[in-house]
Amino acid sequence: MSDLEIEHFLDELCEVAAAETLPRFRAGIDITNKATGGFDPVTEADRAAERALRDCIAKRYPEHGFVGEEEAPVRPQAEYCWVVDPIDGTRAYVCGLPSWGTLIGLMRNGKPIAGAMHQPFTGEKFMAAGGKAFLRHGDSRMKLATRQTGSLSDATLMTTSPFLFPPELEQRYRQLEKCCRQARYGFDCYAYAMVAAGNIDLVVESGLKTFDIAALIPLIENAGGIVTDWHGGPAVGGGDILACANRELHAEAMSILA
Amino acid sequence: MSDLEIEHFLDELCEVAAAETLPRFRAGIDITNKATGGFDPVTEADRAAERALRDCIAKRYPEHGFVGEEEAPVRPQAEYCWVVDPIDGTRAYVCGLPSWGTLIGLMRNGKPIAGAMHQPFTGEKFMAAGGKAFLRHGDSRMKLATRQTGSLSDATLMTTSPFLFPPELEQRYRQLEKCCRQARYGFDCYAYAMVAAGNIDLVVESGLKTFDIAALIPLIENAGGIVTDWHGGPAVGGGDILACANRELHAEAMSILA
Repeated sequence: MSDLEIEHFLDELCEVAAAETLPRFRAGIDITNKATGGFDPVTEADRAAERALRDCIAKRYPEHGFVGEEEAPVRPQAEYCWVVDPIDGTRAYVCGLPSWGTLIGLMRNGKPIAGAMHQPFTGEKFMAAGGKAFLRHGDSRMKLATRQTGSLSDATLMTTSPFLFPPELEQRYRQLEKCCRQARYGFDCYAYAMVAAGNIDLVVESGLKTFDIAALIPLIENAGGIVTDWHGGPAVGGGDILACANRELHAEAMSILA
Repeated sequence: MSDLEIEHFLDELCEVAAAETLPRFRAGIDITNKATGGFDPVTEADRAAERALRDCIAKRYPEHGFVGEEEAPVRPQAEYCWVVDPIDGTRAYVCGLPSWGTLIGLMRNGKPIAGAMHQPFTGEKFMAAGGKAFLRHGDSRMKLATRQTGSLSDATLMTTSPFLFPPELEQRYRQLEKCCRQARYGFDCYAYAMVAAGNIDLVVESGLKTFDIAALIPLIENAGGIVTDWHGGPAVGGGDILACANRELHAEAMSILA
């Protein structure tokens, strides 16, 4: 696949998912409870968007693999494999908050090479392809670049909730947060897009799945940032994630988290 | 002033402020540090938007009062008084997050009678006038109505950060949060608009100023909800605020907070 082919198809896939997610946003959607205890909403929008993406990819590129949130993987070892979270931030989605996004990543031989984070309500497509990162919004296409913030004491950190860390990690997260200039909560995948766009400096989360992060790795890396696990290892499999605007901040954050 | 006159002028004021805030959003704005310790960003957008609102009101209704965030009040005892926060959620604004809003409230003889929460990036105007609450978005105008959620165990609570409560209130907040189905953080004034729009059930915050809440009271009340302080007293002066979708939830939340 050429870079241009990937970019155009990513854009098309964003629209395919949005056709399922956006009409159901704030429309009294049917929430089923996926968890036996607690509250883990899975919406019909989630399932319908994943089905639509899988079908669209299978029709255009029948040899490609597909890994989604809702159903079993198909050919995950294929040369090209799509890794999709139809609605990252389902809880935000059911609360009417525009901080959820559709994540669509493309892996080649196990390495993330392209991806998109689409927020259909605001109309923002944060995209990575061909080594570049850019934001499509309406008719505009803007290059994305991360910040050059040199130390944590000048940095803004985000995480969806400070209470989502397991006890053995929570203390290290808290210590990191204290070293930063400010912390903001909420926003799920939107926070990673803000790192790529140069609006904030780092995102720290734990317990992610591959479909939560694969699309975001090329987005942040192509914009100049770095995404690893808390020990500096690859982030593509999910787990405990540290996304930073640059290598200096990453090294400083790792010295606390690792 | 007639209801229609108020509605049209509110809409005009939203645009006046947006002309100052939106072009500076994500545009490398100049952040000055208002606090001597810590980090309290006040942007040029904040000041410019407040000036523009004050000038527009003074020109059209020279006898009206004006209370803003940045400068000294003008005739706060006037029959009609405008209460304005040009950018509620300045921290979100400087992080590029679309959860800030412009709050414009109108008081008559000390009672909030109309208001708007405008998020210019998403283009949403949540408005209250003439006893009604509605959302203007593009060409659409949608009536707002709060939820009928009957108990906290089915309710979604929001607060900007669980760490903003003073120690003597934090424990009561935590207890309330534990009784709710789920909690979401972040979003500043946008959370109150989500109560009015029937997307979430309650917002709990502490230490608000009058300009943080005055515009939001008629918005939530006209949509069917209720806004008081934690003891059931008037919210218009700010302080510790409880905004609920309905009276049943409000009573249950008060039994924990008061």
